[in-house]
Amino acid sequence: MNRLAICPGSFDPVTYGHLDIIERGAKIFDQVIIVVFNNQSKDPLFSVDERVSLLTESTSYLPNVSVDWSDELLIDYAREHKADAILRGLRAVSDFEYEMQITAMNRKLDENIETFFMMTNNQYSFLSSSIVKEVAKYKADVTDLVPEAVHEALQKKYR
Amino acid sequence: MNRLAICPGSFDPVTYGHLDIIERGAKIFDQVIIVVFNNQSKDPLFSVDERVSLLTESTSYLPNVSVDWSDELLIDYAREHKADAILRGLRAVSDFEYEMQITAMNRKLDENIETFFMMTNNQYSFLSSSIVKEVAKYKADVTDLVPEAVHEALQKKYR
Amino acid sequence: MNRLAICPGSFDPVTYGHLDIIERGAKIFDQVIIVVFNNQSKDPLFSVDERVSLLTESTSYLPNVSVDWSDELLIDYAREHKADAILRGLRAVSDFEYEMQITAMNRKLDENIETFFMMTNNQYSFLSSSIVKEVAKYKADVTDLVPEAVHEALQKKYR
Amino acid sequence: MNRLAICPGSFDPVTYGHLDIIERGAKIFDQVIIVVFNNQSKDPLFSVDERVSLLTESTSYLPNVSVDWSDELLIDYAREHKADAILRGLRAVSDFEYEMQITAMNRKLDENIETFFMMTNNQYSFLSSSIVKEVAKYKADVTDLVPEAVHEALQKKYR
Amino acid sequence: MNRLAICPGSFDPVTYGHLDIIERGAKIFDQVIIVVFNNQSKDPLFSVDERVSLLTESTSYLPNVSVDWSDELLIDYAREHKADAILRGLRAVSDFEYEMQITAMNRKLDENIETFFMMTNNQYSFLSSSIVKEVAKYKADVTDLVPEAVHEALQKKYR
Amino acid sequence: MNRLAICPGSFDPVTYGHLDIIERGAKIFDQVIIVVFNNQSKDPLFSVDERVSLLTESTSYLPNVSVDWSDELLIDYAREHKADAILRGLRAVSDFEYEMQITAMNRKLDENIETFFMMTNNQYSFLSSSIVKEVAKYKADVTDLVPEAVHEALQKKYR
Repeated sequence: MNRLAICPGSFDPVTYGHLDIIERGAKIFDQVIIVVFNNQSKDPLFSVDERVSLLTESTSYLPNVSVDWSDELLIDYAREHKADAILRGLRAVSDFEYEMQITAMNRKLDENIETFFMMTNNQYSFLSSSIVKEVAKYKADVTDLVPEAVHEALQKKYR
Repeated sequence: MNRLAICPGSFDPVTYGHLDIIERGAKIFDQVIIVVFNNQSKDPLFSVDERVSLLTESTSYLPNVSVDWSDELLIDYAREHKADAILRGLRAVSDFEYEMQITAMNRKLDENIETFFMMTNNQYSFLSSSIVKEVAKYKADVTDLVPEAVHEALQKKYR
Repeated sequence: MNRLAICPGSFDPVTYGHLDIIERGAKIFDQVIIVVFNNQSKDPLFSVDERVSLLTESTSYLPNVSVDWSDELLIDYAREHKADAILRGLRAVSDFEYEMQITAMNRKLDENIETFFMMTNNQYSFLSSSIVKEVAKYKADVTDLVPEAVHEALQKKYR
Repeated sequence: MNRLAICPGSFDPVTYGHLDIIERGAKIFDQVIIVVFNNQSKDPLFSVDERVSLLTESTSYLPNVSVDWSDELLIDYAREHKADAILRGLRAVSDFEYEMQITAMNRKLDENIETFFMMTNNQYSFLSSSIVKEVAKYKADVTDLVPEAVHEALQKKYR
Repeated sequence: MNRLAICPGSFDPVTYGHLDIIERGAKIFDQVIIVVFNNQSKDPLFSVDERVSLLTESTSYLPNVSVDWSDELLIDYAREHKADAILRGLRAVSDFEYEMQITAMNRKLDENIETFFMMTNNQYSFLSSSIVKEVAKYKADVTDLVPEAVHEALQKKYR
Repeated sequence: MNRLAICPGSFDPVTYGHLDIIERGAKIFDQVIIVVFNNQSKDPLFSVDERVSLLTESTSYLPNVSVDWSDELLIDYAREHKADAILRGLRAVSDFEYEMQITAMNRKLDENIETFFMMTNNQYSFLSSSIVKEVAKYKADVTDLVPEAVHEALQKKYR
């Protein structure tokens, strides 16, 4: 069987925490599409184009991973692309409850698309796009937290 | 690729909540082995043999699912069977924290075997083997909660 | 004794999850007043008038339930109406902590008005006004999630 | 309407935390029966008789509250006594998840009996029968935590 | 050794919950600096100057406590002031997860500055600056929740 | 001021997670006494003597840390030793609620002894004495999780 997973998010910007989940997913699914959803981020730092481009550059070493964006409902995107699964990372209890709500809603909208969760590596369990932006604004060193391309892009934004 | 997932548990006894997760997993993985771990249940109602046999009967309609048991460490079993993934259901916050601990430990022991989580259907989010046993003991009706074979086995135990 | 309960919320808009709690409450309390609090919803989709009117239509089959609105503090409203209790639904751990905070504050303000919680039916545990609005915006089918009148009102808003 | 609530527990022994909930419930329900369930406590310090007698003495000032015990399933007891509601206290997130599971199971067994939750007074949010026993064993002062009769009974047990 | 702790926050405005933690910290650390961080509060009711002045007045009875403000990153402020520790209060599970994330990030930025947490007194576990502002807006009595100076300042703001 | 902290636990056996907290505490407090409480562990693998001796060996590099044991109530031990503070590690939400309960009880018993919490390093957030014993039983490699002396002791126990 050829298995396709959608990995949705706002990725504003992508962090090593996201990449950890994407890498793990790419070992199990034959194909993974990372999809930037425009609607999920209210006041984004990076435009959808910038986010797609940072993701593309940061995942270029993963042959079965591609990047896309959408302004549809996740479940509609998944259906149109004949995805078998939605892939999400879990870090904390608060993530968990929100994800449970979204998963139940998505199941209600389409029974056939399953949601799989993976635990983020402990090392990145505190990491989020928001906290990266918060500290990057103060010129703190984030080279251990985001890919090189993102690091440079953050420096430009907050120069 | 041919993907094999291990679905571990004590299954004392199997409920419709377990079957919900197993069915969902069997749609994504090419092969699923349900493994009864003897060590996880302190004072079991059903013997390992009984649990394996109830699982086998209850999953006979799923062609790519088989049943086994083990008294090894989960990660050793997974490695020996060349499993790609471990599959677990999540119902509640308390599940989540325990599973996070086990997943981190398993990753420490073997980086190559990923753990995937699926949310149990809302309808079964309150359901556990313990609560089934607790009410079955009082002759309450559990036909909506466990497969027919388990229902009969519970009636025999608590006659 | 004649027992009056206040069921406060922003109800923007009312869902089957709210109605589940209201129906259960109306079986125990002699009278239930649903109160739309204007202050609780920052950027509402429906005006207070619209929300009151959707609630009135959706609860017309419950003889001991009436609908009102207020821009007072909940506890002041409750006191003025000689309410015996405040009635709230609980879905998740995050609800629980917020409700605990509000309950403690209300007790501080008036010891005599008790707050009662009921668990939302499992079937609706993922349901919130926000998630309904989020998917209705994309024309997803919400007929299982909200009363007919709300469904139509949502269609008009997002036409 | 005449409203009857069941307040179930192991009460091994009753604390001021339990009494806080019972008092609050007795203001709303016309009649409250506190029911000691024998099955819930594995290795009790006090016998069912002792627990009933301590509860009776500690609630004698509440005219509409009576005490009973049972070795049935809670929902069967509630049905036989034509109870309208089950009344439970909530202290913490861990309580909440367990109670949600039990409530869902009870609803499955009998749709007509509602469960109401009340938040324990902040002042007693850390209080449990277990922690009282743990410190009473070391002769610590528990007079602020349990009624006088319980205090004396604990002193006798741990003399 | 002379131990210096930083107690950071937005303090918009300071409550008895904050003072409870500050007093406890001041018993263990030789010196405590309360630091108002401007960046943490989006749409503050009180200006940084007002917040500093309310804190100064409310902590004047604590000889080893001083008040400052900063628009730097917390960890940079702590380093420059040669702080040994950051001191934070914990009230609820939701606090806990957020604080864990911040602590991990701060450790990443500087291994040498430790974060210590203290549990807020039960009596104040529901108390937050937001809930105080919410009820003060409706002229509810908050004299038990905030120092006298804050009470007066709130009355002026909401007159 | 000379500050003494008590670091209580069952330490059956000590792990790198415990040592992480002890090291951090020893940087802030002038003196730290690690106290093995006999009563906290029901069915210990190591005797109190063995646990004290493994702790002593594992903390010998920390000059201001000593090891003791007690069968008293923690707060009595703390008072007799004129401790200023109790020091505990926090890993997860479930830890947090339990610790909050114990802290509130200890405050009730003695207002003067404060409890400080530190977050365990992310790297060890999954680590507990129980999980170490569980995997050591199956001869899994735990050299990254416990000090060398503990590793050897575990091998002897499970030979």
